[in-house]
Amino acid sequence: MQKGKITKYRPFPQIDLPDRQWPDKVIDRSPIWASVDLRDGNQALAIPMTVDEKLEMFGMLVDIGFKEIEVGFPSASDTEFQFIRRLVAENRIPEDVSVQVLVQAREHLIRRTFESLEGVPTAIVHLYNSTSPLQRRVTFGKSKEEIKNIAVEGTHLVKSLVSTIPDTKVRFQYSPESFSDTEVDYALQVCEAVMEAWEPTEEERIILNLPATVEVATPNVHADQIEWFCRHMKERNKAIISLHTHNDRGTGVAATELGLMAGADRVEGTLFGNGERTGNLDIVTVALNLYTQGVDPGLDLSKLDDIRAVYERVTRMTVPERHPYAGDLVFTAFSGSHQDAIKKGMDLREKEQTERFEVPYLLIDPQDIGRTYEAIIRINSQSGKGGVAYILSRDFGLDIPKAMHPEVGVVVNDAADKGSRELSPQEVHEVFMQQYVNLDTPLNILAIEREDFSKTGEVRIDADITMRGEEMPVTGTGNGPISAFVDALDQKGWKDFTLLDYRQHSIGGGSKTKAAAYIQIRHQNGKSYYGCGIDANIELAGLRALVSAFNRACSAP
Amino acid sequence: MQKGKITKYRPFPQIDLPDRQWPDKVIDRSPIWASVDLRDGNQALAIPMTVDEKLEMFGMLVDIGFKEIEVGFPSASDTEFQFIRRLVAENRIPEDVSVQVLVQAREHLIRRTFESLEGVPTAIVHLYNSTSPLQRRVTFGKSKEEIKNIAVEGTHLVKSLVSTIPDTKVRFQYSPESFSDTEVDYALQVCEAVMEAWEPTEEERIILNLPATVEVATPNVHADQIEWFCRHMKERNKAIISLHTHNDRGTGVAATELGLMAGADRVEGTLFGNGERTGNLDIVTVALNLYTQGVDPGLDLSKLDDIRAVYERVTRMTVPERHPYAGDLVFTAFSGSHQDAIKKGMDLREKEQTERFEVPYLLIDPQDIGRTYEAIIRINSQSGKGGVAYILSRDFGLDIPKAMHPEVGVVVNDAADKGSRELSPQEVHEVFMQQYVNLDTPLNILAIEREDFSKTGEVRIDADITMRGEEMPVTGTGNGPISAFVDALDQKGWKDFTLLDYRQHSIGGGSKTKAAAYIQIRHQNGKSYYGCGIDANIELAGLRALVSAFNRACSAP
Repeated sequence: MQKGKITKYRPFPQIDLPDRQWPDKVIDRSPIWASVDLRDGNQALAIPMTVDEKLEMFGMLVDIGFKEIEVGFPSASDTEFQFIRRLVAENRIPEDVSVQVLVQAREHLIRRTFESLEGVPTAIVHLYNSTSPLQRRVTFGKSKEEIKNIAVEGTHLVKSLVSTIPDTKVRFQYSPESFSDTEVDYALQVCEAVMEAWEPTEEERIILNLPATVEVATPNVHADQIEWFCRHMKERNKAIISLHTHNDRGTGVAATELGLMAGADRVEGTLFGNGERTGNLDIVTVALNLYTQGVDPGLDLSKLDDIRAVYERVTRMTVPERHPYAGDLVFTAFSGSHQDAIKKGMDLREKEQTERFEVPYLLIDPQDIGRTYEAIIRINSQSGKGGVAYILSRDFGLDIPKAMHPEVGVVVNDAADKGSRELSPQEVHEVFMQQYVNLDTPLNILAIEREDFSKTGEVRIDADITMRGEEMPVTGTGNGPISAFVDALDQKGWKDFTLLDYRQHSIGGGSKTKAAAYIQIRHQNGKSYYGCGIDANIELAGLRALVSAFNRACSAP
Repeated sequence: MQKGKITKYRPFPQIDLPDRQWPDKVIDRSPIWASVDLRDGNQALAIPMTVDEKLEMFGMLVDIGFKEIEVGFPSASDTEFQFIRRLVAENRIPEDVSVQVLVQAREHLIRRTFESLEGVPTAIVHLYNSTSPLQRRVTFGKSKEEIKNIAVEGTHLVKSLVSTIPDTKVRFQYSPESFSDTEVDYALQVCEAVMEAWEPTEEERIILNLPATVEVATPNVHADQIEWFCRHMKERNKAIISLHTHNDRGTGVAATELGLMAGADRVEGTLFGNGERTGNLDIVTVALNLYTQGVDPGLDLSKLDDIRAVYERVTRMTVPERHPYAGDLVFTAFSGSHQDAIKKGMDLREKEQTERFEVPYLLIDPQDIGRTYEAIIRINSQSGKGGVAYILSRDFGLDIPKAMHPEVGVVVNDAADKGSRELSPQEVHEVFMQQYVNLDTPLNILAIEREDFSKTGEVRIDADITMRGEEMPVTGTGNGPISAFVDALDQKGWKDFTLLDYRQHSIGGGSKTKAAAYIQIRHQNGKSYYGCGIDANIELAGLRALVSAFNRACSAP
């Protein structure tokens, strides 16, 4: 890397558009979506899709709701030619889906392309040639006029071949490739020459696709380019303006969004942004961004995990863990304060039964895209009370009292901190059981009998216990089994605490229902201790909770 | 997903800023970078870094050139407390690096934080509380005034504790967490109350960090928020405005870039965008985006692969294949037309020896960030002549004649298409050797003798050959060995072709130098055929090229 004054690179020049309008706009309707998964996406794979895999991808794209699907460059590869023929032969193209084919503006390629299209209901012939100064100079060694003529001659040839496939409705798309670093006025000049050759109408519009083949500037420049182009066009009403952004600077999604604000009608891209180098635009992200702003994208992404599974299998690519909406970790909160807030938001949402989805740290309801709440909260050493309480409640049905959350959070957090790693829900549960439930020393209950005195309403408890390893019977009375057991301890001279709080709830239902009880005591040392008891017998659950709290107090430092 | 009228989500409201200035701005200098890898990044890992791994990460961040590094939330976890103590004890903090610690605006946490800082040369105490309407209502159940007071009281406490660590220069940062969905006027009100409590000066400015904790709108809205905030501040000159974007909508990089245009001075983020959910801002991408616009980012990313290797080891995350700049596939072109253009651009660059880097499809010179040219061109069924020629030249020293490129491209492309997968350079070479070089049927040369006639300048060739398996001697004369051998074939009645082109070049150097020769013939069927011969003996290389071409013509359909 150069340092100080950088001479190897230069800033991309600004577009002269001081009265730009797009920053005031909001995207309030869905664009036309065009999938290029089978073309731009496929060409960038170390192992391109087989014909069978392409058929599966095509079917999935149709199911999602794409009405325009680029299926290949049939003149460049026999596999791609045969793929279209199979789509036709097997009647796989719905009437309302346009099949798009890419072709360079070269005669033999255009002719071969038309051969591939026979029997297709509606085809978009997508002609392109590269127009940027760099490509004109380095790749083609041609003048502006010559480059424009290539486009115009290609258009004439396409037009003349339309009649060779009379049963196919032929639509036309032209791309000045590398639009992003082409002079906007020259790009417009080429596109208008192409329009003049094609003669589109308001009803049968030409698609002008303006690719950011390489991202070369901040995304606002892309928006300026699109707005400049749209505003300077002579016959804007006869063209569909299409975006095709790449992601070299990591701002492909932004460039498309600002480009839509700037007046574009249509978006080309792929599922999860597959494509050459840093990839094409990720249509899933833009569509769900629209959805979370209250705009129906017209694509069904409600089973996003299934879509991802097919995508990963046929492309052999992996959706990254932090990829928006679809990544494994996208709905996961490890941080304690985030977990607290999410838990509160989810609880409130359930309580208030609101339609609107507003939960801290969650842009979208995971259930809208077929993801579960399960992975939202995961526990590592950075996690807090809210997360732990959420896991214990969600996975194990243990609704620990709110006042108990902080100390349980600390206990679990310490366990994760010592292990320096994430704890699974199972491990969180184990820590809780070990620290709050399964405590049998110094005190343990072996057996218990209860007698009720209906006249006084009192209860007598006779219990076999062990205390510091020594087995013995104890007995006591009270207005309930717990106070009776406390009385029994008192008679032995062991009541060095007062009861502060008691609560219980059932876990599960039917014959397997258990009870969980939570007891908080204040020890005579001034500190308070919680204990939990879990048992099929409600009474025993409560007594065990008391024993746990008692034992925790005894073993506390 | 809802369809049609979406009621579950609503559009994020626009910021009232009709005279916004940022769309006219260009980022022409580097911001202050602050790494939050050890904090936001670390907290989002299933397995957080160990102390040793954190030390390695810290050292690497210092080496890259970060001057502000958030190292943890020392009051929340003992590991993070101990980490700072170890940085101090082992003298690992350079004098010019500020160590930043995060803390919620709560008294016991702030006190504990100061305990962790003793001996740190310069510390940034980073106080935060959440200010958005959603968090105020759902998480805290507090009024605007109460939330503001939390921030102000926290600030007072921090200020009062500065004197407890007299050897440390204490700087102060405040974040209204969830700024992105906080009312801008209220966020400003809270920040100005904090400023009033802290009393910053122009020399000792407060850092106001305005986090897009969750991305909630298109990135232009973020820029509007930042510009609104900066323009409405009373004492803009006493504050460093800091950005902290996340990537929930896939536009975190764009939001930061537009935020810098809108007036921010400082950027928080992580290497490769590690962080909660979809991640924090990727500082590597923004820094290299600046670099490719001619701005020195002041970070040394020239060994990006090494940085990535350490990152992947200590975080246990993987940089995705298509991640800008750092992904494995970022510099890879599979497409034929892309390969052609890149090859031409690279060739021209070498020829013209220009300083400026301008190569089609490449945003940055891979060598600037320590990546090689090796992976740029890879061959699958979508590849073309340019790529194949480039591979044969770069990896095997075979500069095949330009006119030969198309047919070799088709031959290799077919091989890849049949296999439906990528071909390694080795495999491309094998296909070439098999199809153009190692052809010994029907004709093969077994041995050869040459005699020169100095008077006439003629050459006589005596060769032992096999023809369709039959061994025999042949002889002929000409003005060179090739024409002599053609004469020999003619005498046998096998000359059904004319020579069109001949060229050769050396491969390698020293004692291992070989020669590669290329011969093009026109067969009497009207078609032309190429052959290649490779041999340590220049003469034999030429004759073998002729034999190859002859055999290709014989075996052609």
